[in-house]
Amino acid sequence: MTKGDLTRQAILDRATRLASQVGLGGLTIGALADEMELSKSGLFAHFRSKEALQIQVLEYGAALFVEAVVRPALHMPRGEPRLRDLFERWMDWARTSPLPGGCLFVAAATEFDDRPGPVRDRLAQLQRDWLSVIATSFAKGATEGHFAADQDPEQFAQDLYGIMLSYHHYSRLLGDAKAEQRARRAFETLLAAATAPVLPTTNR
Amino acid sequence: MTKGDLTRQAILDRATRLASQVGLGGLTIGALADEMELSKSGLFAHFRSKEALQIQVLEYGAALFVEAVVRPALHMPRGEPRLRDLFERWMDWARTSPLPGGCLFVAAATEFDDRPGPVRDRLAQLQRDWLSVIATSFAKGATEGHFAADQDPEQFAQDLYGIMLSYHHYSRLLGDAKAEQRARRAFETLLAAATAPVLPTTNR
Repeated sequence: MTKGDLTRQAILDRATRLASQVGLGGLTIGALADEMELSKSGLFAHFRSKEALQIQVLEYGAALFVEAVVRPALHMPRGEPRLRDLFERWMDWARTSPLPGGCLFVAAATEFDDRPGPVRDRLAQLQRDWLSVIATSFAKGATEGHFAADQDPEQFAQDLYGIMLSYHHYSRLLGDAKAEQRARRAFETLLAAATAPVLPTTNR
Repeated sequence: MTKGDLTRQAILDRATRLASQVGLGGLTIGALADEMELSKSGLFAHFRSKEALQIQVLEYGAALFVEAVVRPALHMPRGEPRLRDLFERWMDWARTSPLPGGCLFVAAATEFDDRPGPVRDRLAQLQRDWLSVIATSFAKGATEGHFAADQDPEQFAQDLYGIMLSYHHYSRLLGDAKAEQRARRAFETLLAAATAPVLPTTNR
């Protein structure tokens, strides 16, 4: 890494933390300059526009998520073991996120769903990428015989996303101490419903 | 209603629409005055502070939701029929919400989960009230014999909330045409898992 890369990395790190608190839409070059006590013109040289800054913060957040959740799970056997590992790491991410304001993507989703443009497009694509990792892991589990062949991987991904979103709200907004236990139970129920039936051996 | 009540109602209606677009946190007396071309001092006379305005917008949104979703469902027989009616009306609300920026409560939940104070407290209480309507309807269904007696109503409420949150993101941010169909299937799976087993009649 060059010195320029390190500086850019440090700025993105602070920008991502700030965005988790004020919302991605509130992350402007001016707000970041105030926060970091840097000149606006210096930050402009790095990012050139508010949208470019917001998109790079999304890329930076997505890279953190991939390093913490997706990449380590690839060492697990594919199918159900890898899906369970993804779930555990996703829960850890939600619980111990380094971002002070909670998950950037959950907040940005409601902020940008009615704001067409490049930030919304990139956000939606990053979400689709992650949901497709889940659907693909589930589909591989069906190939391995862990899940019934008639199950829909896209249904599984939408259902699992719901479990995590509800957990996020119950734990962060409502402060409900049982939120995690219920999310784990919902995940087990979801897996059990998808599990391939053990075929009875017949004696004919 | 007095003329003052009507004026206040009209202001709250516009304020609620504005909040659905800029976020509840972005709803200030100044922003509302600009939007409505009214004087700030006139609005101050009605609301007195930004927090009071934000809380009254939450109350107004909650009242709309109760009128559209909760109250009509009370005419249905309690237990499973009423729960199904609540689900249908909740889906309708999410699909055809009069608010241009989508559900105010979903957006406010991520905006305010890290901002302690009276707005967050009121928002959390309104969410708890609604989730407890769901849990109570489910518990009555168990009493009526529609659901197994060993099912946890709080688990049901957290799971159903997840189905709706995921539906909200899949349809609004991702624009996924199958989101509704998957949400309906998830609801049927959730109900089926909770349904009381039909006891076999034995001939002993």
